[in-house]
Amino acid sequence: MLIQTVPVPKGTEKFEQERQRLIQELHDSIPSDYYLPESLADNIPADVTGISRTCGILNEEELKITEEYDATSLAQAIAEKNFTAVTVAKAFAKRAAIAHQLTCCLTQFFMDEAIERARYLDDYLENNGKTIGPLHGVPVSVKEHMMLAGHYSSYGYLSTRSYNDRDSLMIKILRDAGAVFYVKTNQPQGIMHLESDGFMGRVNNPQNIHLSAGGSTGGEAALIAMKGSVLGLGTDIGGSIRGPSAFCGIYGFKPTSYTLTMQDFLPSGFPAELNILCSTGPMTRSLRDMDLYMHIMKSSNQHLADPRIIPLPWSGLSTPLTNKPIKLGIMMNDGDIIPQPPVLRAMKWAEEKLSKSSNFVLKSFTPYKTAEAMKLLGEMYWPDNGLGTKSALAATGEPMHPLTKAVFSPVTSSFDDLSGPEKEKTATEVSAQRLARDAFRQHFLSSWNPQDVDVVLAPAFVGPACKHDTALYWNYTGLWNFVDYPAAVFPTGLRVEKGEKYAEGHKD
Amino acid sequence: MLIQTVPVPKGTEKFEQERQRLIQELHDSIPSDYYLPESLADNIPADVTGISRTCGILNEEELKITEEYDATSLAQAIAEKNFTAVTVAKAFAKRAAIAHQLTCCLTQFFMDEAIERARYLDDYLENNGKTIGPLHGVPVSVKEHMMLAGHYSSYGYLSTRSYNDRDSLMIKILRDAGAVFYVKTNQPQGIMHLESDGFMGRVNNPQNIHLSAGGSTGGEAALIAMKGSVLGLGTDIGGSIRGPSAFCGIYGFKPTSYTLTMQDFLPSGFPAELNILCSTGPMTRSLRDMDLYMHIMKSSNQHLADPRIIPLPWSGLSTPLTNKPIKLGIMMNDGDIIPQPPVLRAMKWAEEKLSKSSNFVLKSFTPYKTAEAMKLLGEMYWPDNGLGTKSALAATGEPMHPLTKAVFSPVTSSFDDLSGPEKEKTATEVSAQRLARDAFRQHFLSSWNPQDVDVVLAPAFVGPACKHDTALYWNYTGLWNFVDYPAAVFPTGLRVEKGEKYAEGHKD
Repeated sequence: MLIQTVPVPKGTEKFEQERQRLIQELHDSIPSDYYLPESLADNIPADVTGISRTCGILNEEELKITEEYDATSLAQAIAEKNFTAVTVAKAFAKRAAIAHQLTCCLTQFFMDEAIERARYLDDYLENNGKTIGPLHGVPVSVKEHMMLAGHYSSYGYLSTRSYNDRDSLMIKILRDAGAVFYVKTNQPQGIMHLESDGFMGRVNNPQNIHLSAGGSTGGEAALIAMKGSVLGLGTDIGGSIRGPSAFCGIYGFKPTSYTLTMQDFLPSGFPAELNILCSTGPMTRSLRDMDLYMHIMKSSNQHLADPRIIPLPWSGLSTPLTNKPIKLGIMMNDGDIIPQPPVLRAMKWAEEKLSKSSNFVLKSFTPYKTAEAMKLLGEMYWPDNGLGTKSALAATGEPMHPLTKAVFSPVTSSFDDLSGPEKEKTATEVSAQRLARDAFRQHFLSSWNPQDVDVVLAPAFVGPACKHDTALYWNYTGLWNFVDYPAAVFPTGLRVEKGEKYAEGHKD
Repeated sequence: MLIQTVPVPKGTEKFEQERQRLIQELHDSIPSDYYLPESLADNIPADVTGISRTCGILNEEELKITEEYDATSLAQAIAEKNFTAVTVAKAFAKRAAIAHQLTCCLTQFFMDEAIERARYLDDYLENNGKTIGPLHGVPVSVKEHMMLAGHYSSYGYLSTRSYNDRDSLMIKILRDAGAVFYVKTNQPQGIMHLESDGFMGRVNNPQNIHLSAGGSTGGEAALIAMKGSVLGLGTDIGGSIRGPSAFCGIYGFKPTSYTLTMQDFLPSGFPAELNILCSTGPMTRSLRDMDLYMHIMKSSNQHLADPRIIPLPWSGLSTPLTNKPIKLGIMMNDGDIIPQPPVLRAMKWAEEKLSKSSNFVLKSFTPYKTAEAMKLLGEMYWPDNGLGTKSALAATGEPMHPLTKAVFSPVTSSFDDLSGPEKEKTATEVSAQRLARDAFRQHFLSSWNPQDVDVVLAPAFVGPACKHDTALYWNYTGLWNFVDYPAAVFPTGLRVEKGEKYAEGHKD
């Protein structure tokens, strides 16, 4: 079973054959015991988060392991021998298998390898009386495009899929810290949508499979929300960690670029990075797990292996509070698109809670010219005017997805017409784009300074999770990539209520 | 008088008229009292460093002010009212005027403005009993291309010369710290030679006017060596601070990029920076002045005005020594070009001195593939394949200088044939260049790590100051730009001796 509420477009016959082969391969890699009954597909609920618990595939211990821990407490439980790493690996692999059937969140599944690794860790703990590191036995899920030794990676086009014989640096650091790898997770075509619809299929939102799980790290978000992972790795050049985290109700953090190593995450290059740097960060179930992850990475001496990394210190949750309250800017909207009622309600809920704390002084925050930022950003993603994407698709007969067309629209004459410019931007033109970017960043900073805030609380998207193929407005995440500021997303626990409406007089 | 031992090439008649007009304007801005007798030109010594003292234009106090202080002690002397800022400004302006006649180190001279500013500072100190900042009354010389309010800047082509109505950020910070600006200094065509031969003429080396003062910040280096400045501002994308500092026997520091603000130093962009970032730093008479300068800049909150700046802390000379000695790598040569005998002698002199100190452990250091770095670097400077330069020259009939031809050679078919490719690099090609750069940086770091050194001592150039138009090998400086490591140059006090020879068996 693989639920697809809105199938991805079909390509050439040859492409579809190859695509089906990979989907079958993934299917076959999952033990048949972990398959849900086919009958479920005919009568599937919109919210599939409860199915893992009721389906009977996981035993009580496995349900407990996958549901009741974050990475911090799971690592502790394994270190204290409450569970073996093997038991933990098996529990998460099983749950990931179920999550995949319902949300299409995986691209690769390698439980046997994970169990073998977990067994090594169990033996190590037994023989040495200590763990090998702070993630000893903790399963970590990995986004498709990140190099993981012995598996495949791609840039979100079938033609770019290739075998990797080495770990990317972040994987190596986490492996050395004791992580157990067991799955790779789904991403969209070109890794450039706020939805995750790639050649391996489209990711559904676990809370409502008729909605998007967000993207581009939507496979991770869905898997974590399904409790098939406790810690995942994302990347974000326009919202790709934060969008799916917000859509699926988990935590996600995009640091400033060069904070965490991207080595071998995009080994063939990404022309967008001529203008906008991609960043990487954790997707988790708790705030403290983001901090745990950052501490592991920042204490890894990653800068001695990746010369791009800036070794700024990380204090995280142990940053001492001073007598002065934190000046928090409330950004109710971006001055361009008013968020939908559930988001405004969540913002007001948070504002009210924060206003009662003496640790905060609340202010209203107005961002500098979001619409201009988004116009520039939309163009700056494609210094090659999309020619690379076109040839990557043509190479295998892969069809262009609607959201790929949409992200191209700033450099093509219209949404549907992809004839567009057939020439790439020149070095001088790219240099001019970077000047415009730097000028905007300068203005943004000049606008921030007099507003005198330490941090800004803002929506992560114009609404809650949207329908498939409709995530066209990246404002609330892309802005922070354009200025390269750090940004974290957290769940409020609030849900959309029936009958929510815009305030009177609202105009679209 | 304006000594030009090797004149710069002549352009079109119109260009020469405009050039002469600017040179005349500069000439006229210098009071006639400060002109050396024309007769001196007929009988000029090679070493002109003594002429300021003997010419009688400066009085004893002015000689003392310009010769016996570094920026640190000069600031202190002004703060203690040993000298007024006006006296200091006048002394340095006079000495700069003399330096210019002998070395062609200036492009603009504005003594009246400096004296007015100095008078304000003297009044301030008198009325408030304190200085306005750590550089109160200290004259600071500024490289031609940096924006200074009320003056002109250029990219080293006549066609790019334009009036500036605002200060660049670094100038503003130094002005706020009490600096007095009085001159702008000469740079080469395109700011891209290791010699300073621009449309305002060619800078001579003060110790031997038949030799180059280095570039691109050669005006600064010659001016400081002539003691016409105590602190200057340089920029460096291939050796432009370090080369001239080494040629003229002063101190110079190029930090890693984004350490010090470049805001409004290259406001129209610089396509080379698509691949290699330019850096900026101080040129001084003492080690502690480099530190003073860095402390002023790093404590200025420049990152709150320039979003590109990374707020890494600066400990500088107050970095505590630990019990562990510093592991110092001695890089006698770069594996590509063996330095000339005087440089090797200086390296051995330094090695012997350091070997006697218990603060250091000396090791031999071998850099990773310098020749490959220089090949890549030479190409990566010109993602526009030089087309921007060609049109900047054509716009005014400016002749292409021999060293401009030389730096173009990696992207043209031969040294003399500039027909070359008439197309710029595309975004995808630039993206590939950056991948190659990052891969090299990775390899360089992987080669550094097992050599286990904290810092490397290396030559700053293949030889001491070279003949005009011959600075073709940037290896010893450009390598550190290619990997974006910080690098400082200091004088040994050694001079070339007669009869120095390569070791037996040496091959060019």
